[in-house]
Amino acid sequence: MNAPDTLATDKLSQLLALTREPFPASSKHYVAGVRHPELRVPMREVRLSNGEVVSLYDTSGPYTDPEALIDVRQGLAPLRAPWIEARGDTEVYTGRAPEALDDGAKHEERDAERLDRLRREAAALQRQPRRARSGANVTQMHYARRGIVTPEMEYVAIRENQRRVDRADWMAEYLGDAEREARLRGNPMGASIPALITPEFVRDEVARGRAIIPANINHPEIEPMAIGRNFLVKINANIGNSAVTSSIEEEVEKLVWAIRWGADTVMDLSTGRNIHTTRDWIVRNSPVPIGTVPIYQALEKVGGVAEDLTWEIFRDTLIEQAEQGVDYFTIHAGVRLPFIPMTAKRRTGIVSRGGSILAKWCIAHHKENFLYTHFEEICEIMKAYDVSFSLGDGLRPGSGADANDEAQFAELRTLGELTQLAWQHDVQTMIEGPGHVPMHMIQANMEEQLKHCHEAPFYTLGPLTIDIAPGYDHIASAIGAAMIGWFGTAMLCYVTPKEHLGLPDRDDVKQGIIAYKIAAHAADVAKGHPGSRARDDALSKARFEFRWHDQFNLSLDPDTARDFHDETLPKESSKVAHFCSMCGPKFCSMKITQEVREYAERQGVSEAAALAEGLQAKSDEFKRGGGELYIPIQPQP
Amino acid sequence: MNAPDTLATDKLSQLLALTREPFPASSKHYVAGVRHPELRVPMREVRLSNGEVVSLYDTSGPYTDPEALIDVRQGLAPLRAPWIEARGDTEVYTGRAPEALDDGAKHEERDAERLDRLRREAAALQRQPRRARSGANVTQMHYARRGIVTPEMEYVAIRENQRRVDRADWMAEYLGDAEREARLRGNPMGASIPALITPEFVRDEVARGRAIIPANINHPEIEPMAIGRNFLVKINANIGNSAVTSSIEEEVEKLVWAIRWGADTVMDLSTGRNIHTTRDWIVRNSPVPIGTVPIYQALEKVGGVAEDLTWEIFRDTLIEQAEQGVDYFTIHAGVRLPFIPMTAKRRTGIVSRGGSILAKWCIAHHKENFLYTHFEEICEIMKAYDVSFSLGDGLRPGSGADANDEAQFAELRTLGELTQLAWQHDVQTMIEGPGHVPMHMIQANMEEQLKHCHEAPFYTLGPLTIDIAPGYDHIASAIGAAMIGWFGTAMLCYVTPKEHLGLPDRDDVKQGIIAYKIAAHAADVAKGHPGSRARDDALSKARFEFRWHDQFNLSLDPDTARDFHDETLPKESSKVAHFCSMCGPKFCSMKITQEVREYAERQGVSEAAALAEGLQAKSDEFKRGGGELYIPIQPQP
Repeated sequence: MNAPDTLATDKLSQLLALTREPFPASSKHYVAGVRHPELRVPMREVRLSNGEVVSLYDTSGPYTDPEALIDVRQGLAPLRAPWIEARGDTEVYTGRAPEALDDGAKHEERDAERLDRLRREAAALQRQPRRARSGANVTQMHYARRGIVTPEMEYVAIRENQRRVDRADWMAEYLGDAEREARLRGNPMGASIPALITPEFVRDEVARGRAIIPANINHPEIEPMAIGRNFLVKINANIGNSAVTSSIEEEVEKLVWAIRWGADTVMDLSTGRNIHTTRDWIVRNSPVPIGTVPIYQALEKVGGVAEDLTWEIFRDTLIEQAEQGVDYFTIHAGVRLPFIPMTAKRRTGIVSRGGSILAKWCIAHHKENFLYTHFEEICEIMKAYDVSFSLGDGLRPGSGADANDEAQFAELRTLGELTQLAWQHDVQTMIEGPGHVPMHMIQANMEEQLKHCHEAPFYTLGPLTIDIAPGYDHIASAIGAAMIGWFGTAMLCYVTPKEHLGLPDRDDVKQGIIAYKIAAHAADVAKGHPGSRARDDALSKARFEFRWHDQFNLSLDPDTARDFHDETLPKESSKVAHFCSMCGPKFCSMKITQEVREYAERQGVSEAAALAEGLQAKSDEFKRGGGELYIPIQPQP
Repeated sequence: MNAPDTLATDKLSQLLALTREPFPASSKHYVAGVRHPELRVPMREVRLSNGEVVSLYDTSGPYTDPEALIDVRQGLAPLRAPWIEARGDTEVYTGRAPEALDDGAKHEERDAERLDRLRREAAALQRQPRRARSGANVTQMHYARRGIVTPEMEYVAIRENQRRVDRADWMAEYLGDAEREARLRGNPMGASIPALITPEFVRDEVARGRAIIPANINHPEIEPMAIGRNFLVKINANIGNSAVTSSIEEEVEKLVWAIRWGADTVMDLSTGRNIHTTRDWIVRNSPVPIGTVPIYQALEKVGGVAEDLTWEIFRDTLIEQAEQGVDYFTIHAGVRLPFIPMTAKRRTGIVSRGGSILAKWCIAHHKENFLYTHFEEICEIMKAYDVSFSLGDGLRPGSGADANDEAQFAELRTLGELTQLAWQHDVQTMIEGPGHVPMHMIQANMEEQLKHCHEAPFYTLGPLTIDIAPGYDHIASAIGAAMIGWFGTAMLCYVTPKEHLGLPDRDDVKQGIIAYKIAAHAADVAKGHPGSRARDDALSKARFEFRWHDQFNLSLDPDTARDFHDETLPKESSKVAHFCSMCGPKFCSMKITQEVREYAERQGVSEAAALAEGLQAKSDEFKRGGGELYIPIQPQP
């Protein structure tokens, strides 16, 4: 399929070229499986100047592998295709015929020719869809419950371990000190994280519903990953064009940009023009699971009139998206009619788009939410493609004032009931959470979720701890995200600096992702996720030893770290200098400390202890002398 | 003093002009005292488009008052001068004669003429210093313990209340809902915050050492403020030139910039050229308390050789800075000789500059830290000027790996002992804290501090929750800062994006401050500080009602909020539009919610409840039907 070069794809190629640079001093390493030797699980390996090699979890997909040939008009290689085929429980079939309405009822593309080309290219990208054979259930949960360890599960296990075993020598250097390890021991807050993740452990977690592996059989391009409280905390980045702005090319480029910086999944929240076509481009080029909110597209199909939504249109949209390969659907089935009046006295009512659309439908018809009444029919679709549920929190609080109220928790309890129903169908399920929650009310959210949703993975937006930080809500929410991640949330949905204000651009996406990588890593460290501290230790050691390049290269954003350093000390010689611009050469505490260390070794700790005892006596005496309150001594200037 | 216009001060005037703009829709309001009617306590009042007026705590000083005449070569008006004079316990005297060495032993100013002029202008700025009369003690703590409510104390009380009483009607709109207030009730974590701060309450808090009012009698320009866990959480911004870069003008401008965005105190951490002269400029132009680390200047005086430091040089430096008007000194008296070997096995040794300088001195002489052995002599100086102690944590952890270790806590216990000694002299005291601490270890820091330091205010740097975020350490540390602020820390020392990498510029200072205003406010809300949520509620209501300008104007950074919004919807008409670029007009959840609200009012809650019951029965039946596990229905595409 050699489509002619066009302006749009040229622009995209140009943009992508920028993001295909490997990270500095980093290379891609692929680890083979044991049960499934054909697996090639990617790791990013950072080579330090002292010879150490650090393995990092890598979400960037083949884009950062210089060996990989990538053509966005071809899509990524379908690495899961042979696994899916080998299971023998699916069939290729003639999918639903695309309709013009799929791209929305009302939007006119100004440049019709361009849209036509993009649509043709997207159609060429698409394979014939697959679905479960009649009577079959093709979810990872279904396999797990039957005791089958799929290639996806082994892949996840290898990936989560980040080569802890291969790197045991290196890790020992950082995590081998027994005193330190005892002192720093994490507080898992009820999580049960084993020292080493085995494929069997992954299977067990998926079987009991405590983790999901979002992996639509029509998205064979993904590098499987798990979402669950006993795994590394994951983050999601939202992209998507809106009616007001943005283009397909930008969205694909945002996807690649987002996974470069660490997005574990990406949600396509497009609501504007070309919603179907945009999704084709995104899914075919994404190595991470893609989530959507199908009600957005369904609403486009009925011209934006919520009352005109029907179960039939919605159901058709689910199948359309399942055939495209969407890995998880946000389904707002918990926005039940009786809960709607509970939001009337709220400060900010219903702020979830999906939630408010459904609320509007419910009240217009004075009927129960059709997602709730048709829930099991939805399960039937989910299990035919292995689409996971992300049960949406349509009634989440949109301000601190509405946090933890009856509407929010009534919906959460309903999501718990629906989880059990989904599990009866072996459909993988996670639960969405708020939103805006002051710090002291965050833990209750996690506790309620664990209690009512039976340890199904929690997936929260922030939460934002305050409401007065527009322009900086990535920070206001990273605080809440770090805390709830520690308490047990499995995936954190990022918030960008543009939240509440506008559509995020490329830099906003990056800012949001880095803030959330910080929150997720802080949570992993606090939970005591095995090995998670090693990267911090390696960076701190590099810092202490003035290995500037290593410090940059181990950081979440090597480019920015280096640029900031170079603003004041641009010369290469400064990269080995035993000081930085903050204190200058004379005041460098790290330099002085190295001298202290030599002293301590000379003195020995026992002598120091003896000295301490003597000084303690002196100090006691000193304090007794200080009992006099107002000593009439005037300092002489 | 009409100094000729020069390049340097012209440049400064230009820079300052930018930062003297009042905030949008904001004006300065001054509240008079009751006990001291002459007080003029500043508030920032934001006028909303719906007629409401919101009073905000204002750190920006006269700079944002268009009525105030400001000439940086004159310094600010000495508003405390009559109060200090009225107490009759101080005397004006011929201060210590400035020496060339005060600006450092080694630094040559390249432009000697320029430096000379700056020095002359700084000298003209200086008044003759004041000190306590022989035998007198002029600390706020001393007055407080004698039952005296000073003007400073009443000023603080008025300021902390943010016109809660005057604005009771407005607040009731936001905080008047009993259900909501009960649900959101803060968790003060042991703090005892009264509904209204009275001058007597301030006096009592200062008397028992649970709060300080940093207020050197030689800094009459300050607008008094309090640091204590029963007051609003405060933030500090560090500025200061270093040996490598930056100029005096930039530092003064950074001060004004820092307080504009919300710095409650500013530390001048200059280590480079012109250290004395820079401080003159900063103190005379600062309406907020200024802190320093005097050992930095002392070290400059001995040419950077730590071993050459003596008590006499240090003592002389304390008096020099006390005469200039510095309000609090970081004193690393807890870096005791016997603790130094405890740092030898650390991942990052001693990272505090002051700590490492003193450690070096101790080991070079094999003697106890002279700040520890001369501690009571230091108290004598402090009480003659009312300089507050900020007892430095020279052994704070510089990496997560070193958090909460024996060196850190041995020093903390010593700081607790020294606090009691300082209190015997009625010297106001706060305690500095870390540093780098993983989330799950933060609470122990607060608990140990409360236990060993007798509720003296805690003043922490961050803490940074992870080590791998250089370039974004303002975020990594805002997470820790928010948490420890909630737990009881009284003041949070900011961290900028340049931490560990370079000297912060103007924008870095702002980024650090906003991140810390978020952390401090999140802590106030979580503690349940009375009225602290009202601003959030007002902003959320504005958001819900599409009052865009009000939303911007109530935010921590109105400029950025507006700019972000305008990137996609620049037209003024969009400021009243009932949607934004995130969702576009059709999907706007807030708009839909207003329709939902009308419905709920029509339906009434009781009918909804009856409906809920009926649906519950239906749902139970539905679930029973769903018990069949593998329903052989194939979705039809």
